[in-house]
Amino acid sequence: MRILMVGAGATGGFFGGKLAEAGRDVTFLLRERRAEQIRERGLEITTPNGDLTIQPKVATAEQLRESRERFDLIVLTTKAYQLQAAMEDLAPAVGQATMLLPILNGMRQFSMLDERFGAEHVLGGCARIYAEMDELGRIHQSAGPSQINYGEHSGERSERILSVDRALRDAGFQTVLEPDILATLWQKWWFLASLSATCVLGRGVVGDIAAVVPYGPSLARAVIEECAAITQANGYPIAESALLHHIDTMTQPGSTLSSSMYRDLIKGAPVEADHILGDLVDRAKGVSAPLVAAAYVQLKVYEAAQAN
Amino acid sequence: MRILMVGAGATGGFFGGKLAEAGRDVTFLLRERRAEQIRERGLEITTPNGDLTIQPKVATAEQLRESRERFDLIVLTTKAYQLQAAMEDLAPAVGQATMLLPILNGMRQFSMLDERFGAEHVLGGCARIYAEMDELGRIHQSAGPSQINYGEHSGERSERILSVDRALRDAGFQTVLEPDILATLWQKWWFLASLSATCVLGRGVVGDIAAVVPYGPSLARAVIEECAAITQANGYPIAESALLHHIDTMTQPGSTLSSSMYRDLIKGAPVEADHILGDLVDRAKGVSAPLVAAAYVQLKVYEAAQAN
Repeated sequence: MRILMVGAGATGGFFGGKLAEAGRDVTFLLRERRAEQIRERGLEITTPNGDLTIQPKVATAEQLRESRERFDLIVLTTKAYQLQAAMEDLAPAVGQATMLLPILNGMRQFSMLDERFGAEHVLGGCARIYAEMDELGRIHQSAGPSQINYGEHSGERSERILSVDRALRDAGFQTVLEPDILATLWQKWWFLASLSATCVLGRGVVGDIAAVVPYGPSLARAVIEECAAITQANGYPIAESALLHHIDTMTQPGSTLSSSMYRDLIKGAPVEADHILGDLVDRAKGVSAPLVAAAYVQLKVYEAAQAN
Repeated sequence: MRILMVGAGATGGFFGGKLAEAGRDVTFLLRERRAEQIRERGLEITTPNGDLTIQPKVATAEQLRESRERFDLIVLTTKAYQLQAAMEDLAPAVGQATMLLPILNGMRQFSMLDERFGAEHVLGGCARIYAEMDELGRIHQSAGPSQINYGEHSGERSERILSVDRALRDAGFQTVLEPDILATLWQKWWFLASLSATCVLGRGVVGDIAAVVPYGPSLARAVIEECAAITQANGYPIAESALLHHIDTMTQPGSTLSSSMYRDLIKGAPVEADHILGDLVDRAKGVSAPLVAAAYVQLKVYEAAQAN
């Protein structure tokens, strides 16, 4: 199976690097600057269990356009705000049987990919990993899971999803062929959105907000309940135990937990406002979600200021 | 009537300066640094209708303690977070018939003053003025109203409130002896609190937030409705026309309106979090106010970070 990894950031670089090291046929689609860096230094990955440097196959959008090569599986691990540009770059690699596996949070990637390439090409996926890229392009995985979940939107165990499963498994990270990948994505989404919205509204990490008794813990709880209610209204039930566990996590005194979106906001970096919060409130289906909407407003005001 | 103005910031300096210029017996109670500045340069005030420099009577807390002078009327125009310290400074000037006239937004000043000096000393008041102090201590009034409203909490036209009215009127600014000063304060409070909470949650001026259609205007409206509902639950009805006018103001595209609390937040200056927002949600009387509470949480997280 010929695999195209779109981007070699922390997530794509880690999983693509592990696949290449395990002998799979992986090519990275990269911007010129990142392609140059990897041609020169290799793709360097450090993990708690040892380090590796590989020399993967690399292509730029221009090379892809010229070569007219088609890929069997295209894995997308871009940030949401880079997805539109990435779709244009990878378009020449999409043949009639090509599968697109987006590894993003939220749901908006599906309508974008479906519209551009046709829903029949699009699988569902998400990842769990704690990794960061440093200024030299080296990827550092910290302790914790490294896992990809994937599946057909229908839940079907089709021939093609089984072939994806065979291609991805046993490459040095966990894989899960999901019977209901959309449910998994929704479960991840309400969790992530509520963490992000709480940190954005309170402008702090979980412990900072939990310290403002009683309104801080109430804020976290109310945001969680809004996100969970939207998820349920969309047909994805949430177990009471999962809800209580998340409320407990999000009201822990002293906790340094925050979302990457909040950290990006504080740094002045781009944020996935529309993708993670805007799209969620747009799908509220009559559920009242004033707090998540307020966090979204703040992020859009921030984006407008960044654009100027 | 012997008047003690506590502080000579933009508000206190303007009204106290005008009173002194009009020949009233005014003394300013000041910190050493501000006293020194005014002794050297005088109290300089610029207004759209002309400038003035006066040499007012000035006392520090130590001088007040030593002189044992009592005043008839003590006007407080400090920031809420300076009130506790100011009460200690002015305490020696409070005699048996002394009236305390706090010119602050919100309501928390009353419980503080009542507890420290006894409710029988305490009048109610508020001001409308657009003025700023520059780094040399000069006070600059911009166009707009300059007005003080005051009254007995009971609404009574007592001998003493009539004497205050005579002392303050005809000194170059508007005065209003209020039949229900608490109602006036509540009307000012819900207006100010909703403006502050909206700007804090959206992290922008009114026009920035209004531009995030439809969630920005909805945010402003929902915050206004929370503040208005708390006000009504406390026994102060709000006219439909006032509510609609405020919603209209707070959803104006392009508006540069914001609250001084939001501007202080952005500057890294102290904010009146407990006084303007915390006290309001504490008085919610069963009214649900998640958005105002969220803004309060953000300000408390900010205050905790400032303190470190």
